[in-house]
Amino acid sequence: MKYFEDIGVGERTAVGRHTFTADEIKAFATRFDPQPFHVDERAAERSHFGRLAASGWHSAVAWMRLMVAERRRQTEAARRLNEPVAAIGPALGLRDLKWLKPVYVGDTITYESEVIETRVSKSRPNLGLLTVRSTGVNQHGELVISFISTTFVERRPVNK
Amino acid sequence: MKYFEDIGVGERTAVGRHTFTADEIKAFATRFDPQPFHVDERAAERSHFGRLAASGWHSAVAWMRLMVAERRRQTEAARRLNEPVAAIGPALGLRDLKWLKPVYVGDTITYESEVIETRVSKSRPNLGLLTVRSTGVNQHGELVISFISTTFVERRPVNK
Repeated sequence: MKYFEDIGVGERTAVGRHTFTADEIKAFATRFDPQPFHVDERAAERSHFGRLAASGWHSAVAWMRLMVAERRRQTEAARRLNEPVAAIGPALGLRDLKWLKPVYVGDTITYESEVIETRVSKSRPNLGLLTVRSTGVNQHGELVISFISTTFVERRPVNK
Repeated sequence: MKYFEDIGVGERTAVGRHTFTADEIKAFATRFDPQPFHVDERAAERSHFGRLAASGWHSAVAWMRLMVAERRRQTEAARRLNEPVAAIGPALGLRDLKWLKPVYVGDTITYESEVIETRVSKSRPNLGLLTVRSTGVNQHGELVISFISTTFVERRPVNK
């Protein structure tokens, strides 16, 4: 992760892409969101979805997993160049999470995140707060998920 | 699920409670949010959390799982009484999801949901929209998570 000072509004991250298989949709939903249209093809056909669709929570956490992997790649790249690596703190929360279209079996969702606001934390002045809008788009170019999250990021130490 | 017309603002649901074990925290995070402080006790001790803490996504989906189970209990109770059961549709999204305190190993979170707004869908007039504020409180009475979600619920058919 870059230091807070090195991150600007408008900066975009290609977070990654994920294809949702039937087995994975059902495994996630069985564990966390066992509504019939997420765990059973027949029930899904009779539902408003029309066919098996992923839990909205699933399409959200798929972003998280890809984002952690992307940050890890960035950290490893910085270490190879002997560049400093800023710590990333806890997320404070999310706002405006919208599930705009279903994610169906076999859909590939491409996630992107864009910095929309940066500000220094009032309560913890050694940290910055990064507000990011994240989106997921399916293989037809349709926006399926969108949300805004805010996370602490370490500020550049004065002597670096 | 009750019909939209039978649900009023201020109505509360005791969604249930969940105790977060170390194994479960690590299993969830390994799969979906593999940040060091969610998957490794030593790394967690060195982090801002101070000890192993659940992914915020984990404390959110734990609510979902309990909510689905609670709705199922309500549906079964209604069926035993030969009462009609309203369909519940997809969630449109969430707003103002706040992770207010960490959820540590062994914490028991008690979830509650309260209806804060009801309105008829403009685009699908046979459905109502239910907006609910959900909270999770730990065994010390501290609010750890809060969010607002909006979900479609079937309206009472005219002849019922």
